Amino acid sequence: MFQSLDLPHEISKEEFDKKEPKLRGDLIDAQFDLLESEAFPVIVLLAGVDVLGRSTAAKQLMGWMDPRHIRPYAALRQSDEESDHPRMWRFWRALPRKGRVGIFLSTWYDGPAVDFFMGRSERTQFKDRIEEITDLERLLAREGALFCKFWFHRPKAQELEGLKKLKKGRPAAWKTSKEEYDLAKAITERYEEAMGVFEELLAETSTGHAPWFPLASSDPRYRDYTIGRRLVDALGKRLQQAAPEVPPVKPAAEDAVKGPNILNSLDLSQSLTKDEYKARLQKAQKRVTSLTLKKKFEARSLVAVFEGNDAAGKGGSIRRVVQALDPRMTRVISIAAPSDEEMAQPYLWRFWRHVPARGNITIFDRSWYGRVLVERVEGFAAEMDWMRAYEEIRSFESQMAEHGAVVVKFWLSIDKEEQLARFEQREKVGYKRHKITDEDWRNREKWDAYAQAVHDMVDRTGTSRAPWHLIEANDKYFARVRVLETLGDRLEEAL
Amino acid sequence: MFQSLDLPHEISKEEFDKKEPKLRGDLIDAQFDLLESEAFPVIVLLAGVDVLGRSTAAKQLMGWMDPRHIRPYAALRQSDEESDHPRMWRFWRALPRKGRVGIFLSTWYDGPAVDFFMGRSERTQFKDRIEEITDLERLLAREGALFCKFWFHRPKAQELEGLKKLKKGRPAAWKTSKEEYDLAKAITERYEEAMGVFEELLAETSTGHAPWFPLASSDPRYRDYTIGRRLVDALGKRLQQAAPEVPPVKPAAEDAVKGPNILNSLDLSQSLTKDEYKARLQKAQKRVTSLTLKKKFEARSLVAVFEGNDAAGKGGSIRRVVQALDPRMTRVISIAAPSDEEMAQPYLWRFWRHVPARGNITIFDRSWYGRVLVERVEGFAAEMDWMRAYEEIRSFESQMAEHGAVVVKFWLSIDKEEQLARFEQREKVGYKRHKITDEDWRNREKWDAYAQAVHDMVDRTGTSRAPWHLIEANDKYFARVRVLETLGDRLEEAL
Repeated sequence: MFQSLDLPHEISKEEFDKKEPKLRGDLIDAQFDLLESEAFPVIVLLAGVDVLGRSTAAKQLMGWMDPRHIRPYAALRQSDEESDHPRMWRFWRALPRKGRVGIFLSTWYDGPAVDFFMGRSERTQFKDRIEEITDLERLLAREGALFCKFWFHRPKAQELEGLKKLKKGRPAAWKTSKEEYDLAKAITERYEEAMGVFEELLAETSTGHAPWFPLASSDPRYRDYTIGRRLVDALGKRLQQAAPEVPPVKPAAEDAVKGPNILNSLDLSQSLTKDEYKARLQKAQKRVTSLTLKKKFEARSLVAVFEGNDAAGKGGSIRRVVQALDPRMTRVISIAAPSDEEMAQPYLWRFWRHVPARGNITIFDRSWYGRVLVERVEGFAAEMDWMRAYEEIRSFESQMAEHGAVVVKFWLSIDKEEQLARFEQREKVGYKRHKITDEDWRNREKWDAYAQAVHDMVDRTGTSRAPWHLIEANDKYFARVRVLETLGDRLEEAL
Repeated sequence: MFQSLDLPHEISKEEFDKKEPKLRGDLIDAQFDLLESEAFPVIVLLAGVDVLGRSTAAKQLMGWMDPRHIRPYAALRQSDEESDHPRMWRFWRALPRKGRVGIFLSTWYDGPAVDFFMGRSERTQFKDRIEEITDLERLLAREGALFCKFWFHRPKAQELEGLKKLKKGRPAAWKTSKEEYDLAKAITERYEEAMGVFEELLAETSTGHAPWFPLASSDPRYRDYTIGRRLVDALGKRLQQAAPEVPPVKPAAEDAVKGPNILNSLDLSQSLTKDEYKARLQKAQKRVTSLTLKKKFEARSLVAVFEGNDAAGKGGSIRRVVQALDPRMTRVISIAAPSDEEMAQPYLWRFWRHVPARGNITIFDRSWYGRVLVERVEGFAAEMDWMRAYEEIRSFESQMAEHGAVVVKFWLSIDKEEQLARFEQREKVGYKRHKITDEDWRNREKWDAYAQAVHDMVDRTGTSRAPWHLIEANDKYFARVRVLETLGDRLEEAL
């Protein structure tokens, strides 16, 4: 894969000087077309061993283009807020919005390849993290992101020279960390092995929607010119054509799942007396309190998702859960219409931003499942978009779980009669906080379509790490106790 | 101040049980009225020594109200991202948006009082930080925030009891840090001294727009009921009346400054030949590069603000600055219309979010000065709003400077003829990135009003820590070199 790159790749100064003004004009024009279109974000990854080259190339790009609309991302060191969140969180945080260019000098490729090469991770972990990367890139590409991934490569002789430069101390144009130096050193010492790892990494992550450009980076003029030119071409092409189709991982599921709906199996008649309720609720709350205050919980986190029929009692259940939690580590996120900053980002971005740090708790009142529920039923999302969401959500939740989050998902289920009774009751009482809107009545008319959507959701996103808990909620007391007891069970099992 | 609080303040269980349902209903109603109005944010501060009490009270409040629309803030420990930013940054980050309630369990009062009492800061620092607090609260109040500040107080005997509880280890309802324990201990040992410090703190920070409610917190029922009731009353009152007027610190300045306009003193005929330009620019860039890569810079940061006439060449200057900087530590923020998340926050919020961390650089292309320039001239901000902005901006910049930021502000000045020439040139070339809009022509008609606004701005916000640098920009070469050389001078002086 790198063999052809070991041949000389150079541009003379004369040629560069002749071609540069045109390239610069093209780059700026393309950038402003993109800005005006607000159509998609551009994700430029500068990866590879050659840190100095990557940094200089980024500087050149920012100098050529208008730096006011470029968002560079580089972590000279990882902050503790970053390490307290799942691995990909910091990249989600740094994503450029639609119409902008993000230049990543720290990329999601750095960790996996280096850890494996330096013996800090096993092959299976290496493979797992490659899968995480392909999941992420597929998701972003499907949301329209244009990828320009450059892998900086130098022949062994140049790597050795580069190392010498690093050793002499910082040249006056960048900072280098000790880790970066150690890595560069190891690579010169075990050059063939390193190239093997990188080749494997590139082979497995070069896709139609996010291809790699292996780049001979020894000659700065060739390097920078090539990057600039590739970027202009890719941008120009995409601005004129639709995004490439991203193949689904699995064939699309059949339209409707046959057989009995999972919701029909619930026994909604279950109930508790007020005395039973009080006693069991208090006990369950105490258990949740003490579990979340355990020393062990400091290395974990809790993500509790509440979904359910309208008027199923999500608010009341959440309030009972909050009562059991230390407010200093708890946030409740109520999902409503996205803000314009959220609209300019991929669908899952607005949930990623609320993923709790270690030792913390986030309760979601409605969630990313809106995509496969209301957006599916109401037709706000195209079928291929909600279809792919199942897989994207599984990946999202599994990343949280892998980082130590206990992911607990509730579906609060009531039947149609109970909902009617509650709607009527609410209209009678007339509390603002429980106002029944025309939309609520309209949703009710689509009861069966929602039931189908819920069934499919539970079926396709209930995993061993993040199972669904269906809560029989015709009786509020019963539901609240079940929620708290389930939380307790899940926490106990995890800690 | 605390004397009356040492008398018993209690509510019996019977009375509490009788009153609670009504209070809860009132709280929720008030909360939903607030939510619907989206009129202002509510900032509840729970301060004082009694950490356990504060935490339990917050839990009770969240249990009574709808926790989905409450944003609690508490820092069990400060993250390194927080300590890498100016002191108030973490609070700005945690501000509730309009229509929401923010409950602060960690407050801006914690640090100053405790540091002074524990001997970690001098009296002058204590006073300075009180001033910083009053600046912040005045600013927020002027933007409409409703404050409910509760100071939890316990008589000495109860403090001792509280300490014993803490000592027994964590009760099953909260976490306590070592610092919190040490503080509680010191307070019981030097009770009178502590109360003296707190009294001074409260006396100096209790204002008409952000009054303190000293609260006898020994009896949980009295404590929680009182907080809830006060909150309902304050909310109800504000929802019906306008916000109280916040007095200006200084009398409003006269409408127009007499005497020669500061801009007239510039010699705009200064210029450089292309050769001089090339040589001096390169030299100045190298100097900036090496200064920002100095070890010492890691504890500092750089905030560079670019303002100037339309077509004065801000973009070109910024590009030359960026060329000199390591992209890994640089961000360029282009200020355009605020997003809806930004609209729901106080004016300065959208700039606070981009304040660079230690070792980093933020370049603002236009800035918070929009308030006293375009918003003043176009009448987008009321006179009292842009008038107070001078003082608010001084405080904002001085907080950055105090944290180690080198704050460099440029006004790029061209004359009316040069602007006309550039507008015409741009229309002729027709580059999208330099499109001249109708708005540009309209602004040009208000040349004199802008000149007056610029003069006042420079006059009122040019401080020794954050001076204005007026750049003669009729000649682009001259301007760019001046910008880079000034940056170099300021960095050298600071490092």
